[in-house]
Amino acid sequence: MARYTHLFSAPRRARVGIPRSRAVCYRTAMTLPFSQRFLALAKERSPLCVGIDPSAEALKGWGLPDDAAGLRAFCQGLVETCAPLVASVKPQSAFFERHGPAGLEVLRQTVEAATAHGTLVIVDAKRGDIGSTAVAYGEAFLGPRSPFRGDAMTLSAYLGLGSLAPIFEIARREGAGVFVVIRSSNPEGSELQRARLPDGRSVAECLADEITVANAAASSDELGCIGAVLGATQGAEAAELAKRLPHSLLLVPGIGAQGATIADVRRDFARHYGRV
Amino acid sequence: MARYTHLFSAPRRARVGIPRSRAVCYRTAMTLPFSQRFLALAKERSPLCVGIDPSAEALKGWGLPDDAAGLRAFCQGLVETCAPLVASVKPQSAFFERHGPAGLEVLRQTVEAATAHGTLVIVDAKRGDIGSTAVAYGEAFLGPRSPFRGDAMTLSAYLGLGSLAPIFEIARREGAGVFVVIRSSNPEGSELQRARLPDGRSVAECLADEITVANAAASSDELGCIGAVLGATQGAEAAELAKRLPHSLLLVPGIGAQGATIADVRRDFARHYGRV
Repeated sequence: MARYTHLFSAPRRARVGIPRSRAVCYRTAMTLPFSQRFLALAKERSPLCVGIDPSAEALKGWGLPDDAAGLRAFCQGLVETCAPLVASVKPQSAFFERHGPAGLEVLRQTVEAATAHGTLVIVDAKRGDIGSTAVAYGEAFLGPRSPFRGDAMTLSAYLGLGSLAPIFEIARREGAGVFVVIRSSNPEGSELQRARLPDGRSVAECLADEITVANAAASSDELGCIGAVLGATQGAEAAELAKRLPHSLLLVPGIGAQGATIADVRRDFARHYGRV
Repeated sequence: MARYTHLFSAPRRARVGIPRSRAVCYRTAMTLPFSQRFLALAKERSPLCVGIDPSAEALKGWGLPDDAAGLRAFCQGLVETCAPLVASVKPQSAFFERHGPAGLEVLRQTVEAATAHGTLVIVDAKRGDIGSTAVAYGEAFLGPRSPFRGDAMTLSAYLGLGSLAPIFEIARREGAGVFVVIRSSNPEGSELQRARLPDGRSVAECLADEITVANAAASSDELGCIGAVLGATQGAEAAELAKRLPHSLLLVPGIGAQGATIADVRRDFARHYGRV
């Protein structure tokens, strides 16, 4: 079963007056911030984000060999079919890494192919580290000067949101975006993400608030460069977190293989969904 | 300034009666579990783990170009000089990823070169994800059948320790090791890692206990395949966490550039250090 992710702004949509005919060219120029480029494209196409997940099982399902050539064929097929229809695609880095350096060359080519369709690419890498290592992850994936040339990437914050600040800085400089996992779609994440700080907030709530402060401090735009990942399977809890993220794009995975439906997202994120 | 990490067992050292002359061959065979191979080699060489951190700044400091060729020269030099002296080296994946697929080919070659010296390689990747994606990360980095052929890798647990179970399974199957970040050396990580669960334990304490349960359930060996990363800068707090991890190897970064000294580690981990 395919995996889809819903990507949208909440709760207020940034008003970017980009004429329909000019929207696509912003993808190439990469001068406007990611959030504005996304909103313009989502209006033209669809806000759904297509996951590119060439797992061993998926390659087998397509009758492809489990090697770099099979990986390339899978990604080419998916990008040619889907990329023109949506605002963004999300290749999962792990499925490229398991084929070694040759697999990462296919990741690079996949980003390039999607970009040729004017589609934004969110590299799902869930990276996170400190200091110069964080800088290196930002330099690896974000913007046209990076080797993988992603428009955005996902991040993991076990080392604290502050540890990711160097990546946020690179994202701002390059007009790229980041999505920090706040509340994941899997049940095993609940214990940690619901743990409480001394002030009573959960870990997820604290990260959401810190993202909002960082976005507001860095820019007067309605949407900042730091988005959040909120599992579609988390329902009302994720919707509550969305309220704490007024300046963030939201990436909502879990539709499809993980059991949530687009109807679930419409229900749980009702107030925000209407503003997509 | 160089970065060193201390890697050791706590609190009880597994008794592996490997004759000195035979220890190195276990590196190649990769049949014994990682922890036993590490302990045998640490007895012969040093338990210090040398970080391979070819940041932009480090390449500049060595007078090397900031490209894949400079990266290769840096890693070759460091491996030839240091790898024969220590039980393990720890290349930081981010510094290879920032050079794209060519950089990841250098990572592969660096692991190969260290392996040729009989040295164990811990890929510092801090990966973490769920389901088939977690499987893919394990398949990418762990064991001689993986493209990067690491002996161990570091993991991040924001999605819950349970989400990493597929990687633990691959580690066991391949005789490899993993190190989950429990308490990081940077100050920004404290808020999240000290957040409390309903039963009063901190997030870090809970992860430590879950690791101990998982190690004990999977094997009757004194040391399991799941180790932990505990920041040397966290002093007594990290030492308390070490007590909760009787079946884990401990990777203690923060010595050198981050301000902690080997004397700090000796003091804070006194009871455990004596058993290295």
